Amino acid sequence: MTSTIPKDSVGIVKPELIHFDEALTLRSGKVIESYDLMIECYGELNQDKSNAILICHALSGDHHAAGYHELEGKKDEKPGWWDTCIGPGKPFDSDIFFIVSLNNLGGCSGSTGPTTINPETGKAYGPDFPIITVRDWVNSQARLADHLEIDQWAAVIGGSLGGMQVLRWAISYPERIRHAIVIAAAPKLSAQNIAFNEVARQSITTDPDFHQGHYYEQGTYPKKGLTLARMIGHITYLSDSSMNEKFGKDSLTGGNFGRDLSTGKLNFGFDVDFQVESYLQYKGESFSSNFDANSYLLITKTLDYFDPAVDYEGDLSKAFLHGNCKFLVVSFSSDWRFPPERSRELVNTLLKAKRQVSYLEIESDGGHDAFLLPVPRYLEGLSSYLSVVANETFTNEKTSHAS
Amino acid sequence: MTSTIPKDSVGIVKPELIHFDEALTLRSGKVIESYDLMIECYGELNQDKSNAILICHALSGDHHAAGYHELEGKKDEKPGWWDTCIGPGKPFDSDIFFIVSLNNLGGCSGSTGPTTINPETGKAYGPDFPIITVRDWVNSQARLADHLEIDQWAAVIGGSLGGMQVLRWAISYPERIRHAIVIAAAPKLSAQNIAFNEVARQSITTDPDFHQGHYYEQGTYPKKGLTLARMIGHITYLSDSSMNEKFGKDSLTGGNFGRDLSTGKLNFGFDVDFQVESYLQYKGESFSSNFDANSYLLITKTLDYFDPAVDYEGDLSKAFLHGNCKFLVVSFSSDWRFPPERSRELVNTLLKAKRQVSYLEIESDGGHDAFLLPVPRYLEGLSSYLSVVANETFTNEKTSHAS
Repeated sequence: MTSTIPKDSVGIVKPELIHFDEALTLRSGKVIESYDLMIECYGELNQDKSNAILICHALSGDHHAAGYHELEGKKDEKPGWWDTCIGPGKPFDSDIFFIVSLNNLGGCSGSTGPTTINPETGKAYGPDFPIITVRDWVNSQARLADHLEIDQWAAVIGGSLGGMQVLRWAISYPERIRHAIVIAAAPKLSAQNIAFNEVARQSITTDPDFHQGHYYEQGTYPKKGLTLARMIGHITYLSDSSMNEKFGKDSLTGGNFGRDLSTGKLNFGFDVDFQVESYLQYKGESFSSNFDANSYLLITKTLDYFDPAVDYEGDLSKAFLHGNCKFLVVSFSSDWRFPPERSRELVNTLLKAKRQVSYLEIESDGGHDAFLLPVPRYLEGLSSYLSVVANETFTNEKTSHAS
Repeated sequence: MTSTIPKDSVGIVKPELIHFDEALTLRSGKVIESYDLMIECYGELNQDKSNAILICHALSGDHHAAGYHELEGKKDEKPGWWDTCIGPGKPFDSDIFFIVSLNNLGGCSGSTGPTTINPETGKAYGPDFPIITVRDWVNSQARLADHLEIDQWAAVIGGSLGGMQVLRWAISYPERIRHAIVIAAAPKLSAQNIAFNEVARQSITTDPDFHQGHYYEQGTYPKKGLTLARMIGHITYLSDSSMNEKFGKDSLTGGNFGRDLSTGKLNFGFDVDFQVESYLQYKGESFSSNFDANSYLLITKTLDYFDPAVDYEGDLSKAFLHGNCKFLVVSFSSDWRFPPERSRELVNTLLKAKRQVSYLEIESDGGHDAFLLPVPRYLEGLSSYLSVVANETFTNEKTSHAS
């Protein structure tokens, strides 16, 4: 296919692998002696390096956030995962900002993770890859900023688990971030969130092809388990009403979920009766073909362990007493994974810490996944906020040029 | 143990197996030539047989709804699954009513189901047991009523899938039911409900010990798959807030879900870190030791297929145009499986059909499972309603004695 590239796209992009030789001590106490981070950049870094934005990905994301990869001389069919927001004239405007996106440590898209060869053993890390926390990620991202010679991000931005990294940036490196944009996130998981993660993990680890994570050496792959894990996850990313909308359009029964009313017959067996079943199976299977099961296990633990209040006697507001960065918190009405209530709690916590916070609560049927969707009021809100960030950036730039 | 039996218990109860020789034609077109139903009865049937109540069970329920079984001459440790509601002086008062509870066809607690020997083959039905719908169940329950010589139930009562049977009674046998009590139910599943059921089924059928349902013959059992299925189900029975309440009491972090703060350590591995994980695993495993996987598969399909509006061009109110039974609909604020909204829709539908409906929306943190819990306002509401049913019953009785 030779389809053209949309005008508001960052175009064809090329990932870059950055090697870090300095050992990274993790929160667990374990040490990664050296590692690689796969990154992608959009736009141009300005002279005084004040226009840089860091994008943090969620559970299944990677460095490829916008634009297209070139495959065999042709443009890829699908743009990066946050292409709705990143590009010329889009909320994270690549004509204005220098935007950096990376695959986090422990991932499976090029950065060092379970599928990487452990230099000490000559074999893939597999299940021996250490548990990584959000704090560890942010430490590795700070090293990346050093490498790129970016002292301070104009903004660090992320949705879901990405939003947790943004919070951690504001806590760990308060002087290195001017704006923290936290979307569809929460300052820690609820028991229900952890429960869903645990079921997902069990579905992977009880797959007989898992072999305690040593499936690479066995020539197997826990595809069924990872498919199941993703199906469970996927249900929690959508809202009940959006699923009904998507799969219940037949007006004859007021929503039949794909039941075949032309024949009026149900299977009366265990084959698929409803579109929602085949949709979920398709989603789970295509995900499990492209993601590493050990990475999935690892990153669900990263989610479970996030709880920055632990270091502040349970009072999260104390975590935000330092630094001057401003916050934008965004939530979506139908997100039941991290509902608006959790974001409002976060806003209150930030206000208690006397921080400047803007809050956007967006009406949307899109559930948790709404942060990836082109919801007009959401995109407009982000654009408005980012134009303020841009103004500050240019004012700074002029001031610094004048000085 | 020789603990005494509480005064408000129906006491030691004995199940009874009833054999039916008349063939039952199912909605699928398949025929069960003969079958057994395991039942339990509490209280005494009055002379004119007007005080009978039928209890319909949900996905994992059975005939043992109240009182205790005698095990080796001693009382069982746990009473029946709805003992909070059934007994002397309780809402379904066994001093007033004759209460009948049964294990439904396709179940695994004594009634004919997948574990039963198929007389035609001499082997267990297993996966060849036909798909059973709520309508089929209600038809078999009507045969049970015939057997017990009960022309009309004073009330048919059920929660969740039990409530769907109640609705089906009001549609299929409008003259044989005076009161329909529909608790924590919905007139059909949402796409999300079906999605969760599908994931549960996949987790069973992809277990290598499942052997396409012929695990009895293989001497195996898909325990891991059924455990996972139940874990998923269990999350949907509880509310997010009740899980936080149960597992997040440590005030140090404002809810730590069992994180061991005495040592301050996380595992940094894939062992259990949080109580909610071990709780769910325990619940799943103990369930899977006592339930048949083929029955579980079957009954999730029974849930998915329930949609009585299909026979009425999608207008459910037309299903309720016949009969005079009165309705009590009950929902719970934190039930996200069948939320109050779904019950209010049902109430509106019944009003559209000009039926008499009472509606109780109960504030409770208990989620879907609240219908099994001793929530005071709920039990009081049921008691009040059932006292009206009792008054009618006795008035009828006096009238009929006088005639």
